[in-house]
Amino acid sequence: MRIGVLGTGTVGQAIATRLCELQHEVCMGSREAGNEKAAAWAAHHGPSSSTGTFADAAAFGAIVFNCTAGRGSVAAVTSAAPQLAGKVLIDVTNPLDHSGDTTTLFVGNDDSLAESIQRAVPEANVVKTLNTVNNAVMVDPSLVPGDHVMFVSGDDEGAKATATLLLEQFGWPPERVVDLGDLTAARAQEAYLLLWIKLMKPLGGFNFNVAIQQG
Amino acid sequence: MRIGVLGTGTVGQAIATRLCELQHEVCMGSREAGNEKAAAWAAHHGPSSSTGTFADAAAFGAIVFNCTAGRGSVAAVTSAAPQLAGKVLIDVTNPLDHSGDTTTLFVGNDDSLAESIQRAVPEANVVKTLNTVNNAVMVDPSLVPGDHVMFVSGDDEGAKATATLLLEQFGWPPERVVDLGDLTAARAQEAYLLLWIKLMKPLGGFNFNVAIQQG
Repeated sequence: MRIGVLGTGTVGQAIATRLCELQHEVCMGSREAGNEKAAAWAAHHGPSSSTGTFADAAAFGAIVFNCTAGRGSVAAVTSAAPQLAGKVLIDVTNPLDHSGDTTTLFVGNDDSLAESIQRAVPEANVVKTLNTVNNAVMVDPSLVPGDHVMFVSGDDEGAKATATLLLEQFGWPPERVVDLGDLTAARAQEAYLLLWIKLMKPLGGFNFNVAIQQG
Repeated sequence: MRIGVLGTGTVGQAIATRLCELQHEVCMGSREAGNEKAAAWAAHHGPSSSTGTFADAAAFGAIVFNCTAGRGSVAAVTSAAPQLAGKVLIDVTNPLDHSGDTTTLFVGNDDSLAESIQRAVPEANVVKTLNTVNNAVMVDPSLVPGDHVMFVSGDDEGAKATATLLLEQFGWPPERVVDLGDLTAARAQEAYLLLWIKLMKPLGGFNFNVAIQQG
């Protein structure tokens, strides 16, 4: 399958690399063509990898991952809006603001970054997922033992099903994928990051996740 | 031990009842003396139970639980500020605003209800805990199988140790109590409620919690 990955940072590289391992063709997009990190990534991943602008990557992919930095996400998808129309846009970002003493969210509570992105590209079908774990765990959940879960939300059921299939390829079995409902649930998924950040210190690492236990 | 419980709702009743079962003496406090729900509760719990105003309950307890409705919590503790000085104040509330289409938090992100309470009673030692589970699970974690966890935060280490001892009496073993650090972590504990609410529907019930799994 042809998949676009918006963003050249650690998350974008982890997801693009995993997609190549899974025999997908991947175009990594950046704000301007000729991005050095994208070129270096593509040089190591053979003919199934390519690079371009955000619009190029969105045009290339039947499915597109948004892995841009939270602060730049709305601008990134807006620059590729025509190319994202009708496509599944899997949003893995978090609206983190590290400018203060403690990390906060620059959007939240009665809105979310995923909803902001959906409003910017109303013809795309945004699915929020993968934002609640470290990038290594995103693409290899077996790094964490047990039946820990991945949340998905979105307004389009077909898009969520597509995202769930890709999650399964990454190693998340469907029974560990929890559908939280429409895209307003992204407020909850993004707000969870505040807890994730506080858990890092007592746990002493990044590779962790939550399991749901029920009585 | 003598313990005050501020609040006469389902959470206050669940905690006060459990404390009586554990042979503590409990005073349930309400905004005005003579509260009918408090009187009915005390009538069923024998000589170790009593009722009074918030200030009466705070004066009675060596430890005090804040189980008031989130919107009324700051006013409640303020009315008992002199009686709360020097005491451990275990805050189990959530700043939920149900007035809109989706539940939001009326304080959050760069502040929390627990911190608002701490500012209102600076001479008390506020510990945030128990707010991340249903009231039944708060006082009987065995309702949910497995090694699910309870978070604590607060600025006073001794107060957190006291709260952890009470959690152990409720059935939370210390190895499943996760200390998230100072009271700014209450922002994370309270924000988690947005996820808790979204989980209710797919899980179809209230008695659930999260376990932490780590690689």
